[in-house]
Amino acid sequence: MTASSLDALIDALRRLPGVGLKSAQRMAFHLLQHDRDGALRIAAALQGAVSQVRHCSRCRTFTEGALCAICSDASRDARQLCVVETPADQAALERTGSYRGLYFVLMGRLSPLDGVGARDIGAQALLERAADGSVEEVILALSFTAEGEATAHVLSEALRARGVKVTRLARGVPAGSELEYVDLSTIAHALVDRH
Amino acid sequence: MTASSLDALIDALRRLPGVGLKSAQRMAFHLLQHDRDGALRIAAALQGAVSQVRHCSRCRTFTEGALCAICSDASRDARQLCVVETPADQAALERTGSYRGLYFVLMGRLSPLDGVGARDIGAQALLERAADGSVEEVILALSFTAEGEATAHVLSEALRARGVKVTRLARGVPAGSELEYVDLSTIAHALVDRH
Repeated sequence: MTASSLDALIDALRRLPGVGLKSAQRMAFHLLQHDRDGALRIAAALQGAVSQVRHCSRCRTFTEGALCAICSDASRDARQLCVVETPADQAALERTGSYRGLYFVLMGRLSPLDGVGARDIGAQALLERAADGSVEEVILALSFTAEGEATAHVLSEALRARGVKVTRLARGVPAGSELEYVDLSTIAHALVDRH
Repeated sequence: MTASSLDALIDALRRLPGVGLKSAQRMAFHLLQHDRDGALRIAAALQGAVSQVRHCSRCRTFTEGALCAICSDASRDARQLCVVETPADQAALERTGSYRGLYFVLMGRLSPLDGVGARDIGAQALLERAADGSVEEVILALSFTAEGEATAHVLSEALRARGVKVTRLARGVPAGSELEYVDLSTIAHALVDRH
């Protein structure tokens, strides 16, 4: 184990989120032992993505052009603006096939302890966009975690102060679940929001 | 999410062991959003390791030269040959500082269901090396898992048939552990191997 380029690889792989020393070793050994072609493909994909991927100037999601495909799609309903935390959340909403409006991607959520403030999630751009006259409803589709809730609270206060209509995703019992196995906080919310 | 180089990156990252679609997405988003410099470093490290790292012609571990540092160290005791599964296991043994012999790294273990046979773990080279006259004892330092045990069984049978002295790591109660919390199989082994 004096192979310094092997050590450099293990070190580099530890920069991946959720990867510690043991996982990085396992990844490096696997690639070098069983999948050198894969290692080169990962390297090329990383370089390609870093050089090609930038942010949509309108909704901040990842894209390769100036505007992403959704923002440049004239058939989308510009009166609805859905605010999500990440491109992954946006992709999940798109897969449902039940939303035809536009998006604003925060690329994160407020997290003062990690130094993520309003500027990092593009709050100012969101407020200007929401008040530009074409948007009739802002849908906050944020996580129902502590940080997601805090972000939603801050954004909805600021949006409402500008006279924008703000809604949030419904909280309730997930599709396909038996009540017995749903956590109590979810049942309590579903009870309050009954309709 | 029509950024094709982003999709290519997520696809490529899924080749890493233990990484599924969600983890690959998280890694790709993290790198592109927060650590583009890290992404380029990982790419360079992958390319460097693939081009530089090869196998020691003597013990099969990863190295950048023809012989690894341990095999080319004349002060090591050539009468002892320790057989391990991976360079990581070898590194763990080295860190103990209590072994001064040489190594043979299988780079895997027998696993017929995964198509890993005797040829893949270099069994023939091990047998030749063990019978070359200089080796007095082969220490099988393999995992005490089903596959590790099976590999040790096959290797020790073959080695003993060639008149080589074969030993295995002692099984027993780990250092620092309270008997109450040690699993029963380990206690039973420690009882049988009491001395």
